Amino acid sequence: MSLANPNGPTIGVFDSGFGGLTVLRALLPLIPGARYLYLGDTARLPYGAKSQQTIARYALSSAAFLLEQGIEMLVVACNTATALALDDLKQALPIPVVGVIAPGTAAAASANADTNVLVLATTATVQSGAYTRACTALGLTAYEKACPLLVPLVEEGWIDHPVTAEVLRIYLTEALEEAPNATTLLLGCTHYPLLRPMIERTLTALNHPLKIIDSATATAHAAAALIPASAQSAHATCTFYATDSIEKFQRLGTSFLGQPLPEVHLIDLGG
Amino acid sequence: MSLANPNGPTIGVFDSGFGGLTVLRALLPLIPGARYLYLGDTARLPYGAKSQQTIARYALSSAAFLLEQGIEMLVVACNTATALALDDLKQALPIPVVGVIAPGTAAAASANADTNVLVLATTATVQSGAYTRACTALGLTAYEKACPLLVPLVEEGWIDHPVTAEVLRIYLTEALEEAPNATTLLLGCTHYPLLRPMIERTLTALNHPLKIIDSATATAHAAAALIPASAQSAHATCTFYATDSIEKFQRLGTSFLGQPLPEVHLIDLGG
Repeated sequence: MSLANPNGPTIGVFDSGFGGLTVLRALLPLIPGARYLYLGDTARLPYGAKSQQTIARYALSSAAFLLEQGIEMLVVACNTATALALDDLKQALPIPVVGVIAPGTAAAASANADTNVLVLATTATVQSGAYTRACTALGLTAYEKACPLLVPLVEEGWIDHPVTAEVLRIYLTEALEEAPNATTLLLGCTHYPLLRPMIERTLTALNHPLKIIDSATATAHAAAALIPASAQSAHATCTFYATDSIEKFQRLGTSFLGQPLPEVHLIDLGG
Repeated sequence: MSLANPNGPTIGVFDSGFGGLTVLRALLPLIPGARYLYLGDTARLPYGAKSQQTIARYALSSAAFLLEQGIEMLVVACNTATALALDDLKQALPIPVVGVIAPGTAAAASANADTNVLVLATTATVQSGAYTRACTALGLTAYEKACPLLVPLVEEGWIDHPVTAEVLRIYLTEALEEAPNATTLLLGCTHYPLLRPMIERTLTALNHPLKIIDSATATAHAAAALIPASAQSAHATCTFYATDSIEKFQRLGTSFLGQPLPEVHLIDLGG
């Protein structure tokens, strides 16, 4: 495949919104020579409340757009789309497709010998059961905790706010009552890496330290493993597309990417 | 028009989700003889992040479905759809169409002689500027405060929770710093009536009592004013449709409607 392109590979990164920018952020130092095309399907988010058929249709049309732009690998930087559309994407696309769930789970499996995994995720991801299936397949015991307020709190910008600390304390206390033997905490949503410092402080305050696995970072490593080292020399370029709400994408995306976002291009995928 | 039907009128109530059930709840005692058809376009929510054209298209297809079922009046029980699609709906439909913004604003105008109105609403509604336009038209001074965490908190079921009390304290404190002369508080989102007792307690604690206007109740009165008294005798019947997420609609809808929800019918409006 053309991933050995000496000018660096062209990598598509796809999410329903801007949360997947945390995956792109993790990719940049690992595959610095790539040309990245990021697509946030903001017109049709959140995917969480939609049926599997609908999400697969959205994901396929988003992937088709990126394929037309010349991507040679697709990173599905969205837990819901990975849970509900990864198989369809892998079947439909002639290029490697990497989702966020398997890499995060594999990282959890290698983190501790005897692993009980606590997964924090959105309601939609928890309801899909995808992390439990992935953990079970690797011999791990999973407990999934839905944390529906964390995405709105991050999007409100309350990253380091006492209300967010209290919500995290409540969610983690409830989760640890259900999963007292957990040794590993898996962040199963692309918004959650922004809360990692506060999650660490909360676990310390609860006197229950856990090994934290960030599926954004794990996914970036899985994608980098598919890229020949020879392609990892030049400087990255990033192009951003969204299907709606350009202003919010640009404003909030900066803290997700960890650097200012350049122009975001508005595209129309219909429906 | 056939609203004088002695068997009671057939009234369509439309929202992007189940928030509009607070409007239906207010309608039931005012027009007890009606046959209500409620449609929550849950597959395509939230409308907030979409463009005006997209929202108008969604609202028109939802209204067309209800029209086919025989509605004689449409209540747009959704602030975003009212802000962005009411004119299109009024032009396209051969029946009376009532939105939530004008009735709420008119109720605010009659609540106090010298009125500075503080409007709490979602980010999308605030960005539309619809309440400011409606208030200005009635000689009122409006200050709109976006409260993006309130809908997620209500949907988490944290109606009477200390975290919600703290978030309300923060939002209301910020709003009252910007609008210290406010005399009236307009609840510009169909989720907010569930928080009314806590909003009242918060205002008391802030030593800043305001006259609270609930646009759900105001809208129900505006709709009832169009119905002849002769049609207001029999018992109401309610039929519920949603385009996705039936389970969540049924579970959360009960507290919005104030009574258990019967079966919710899944319908497909496409795209």
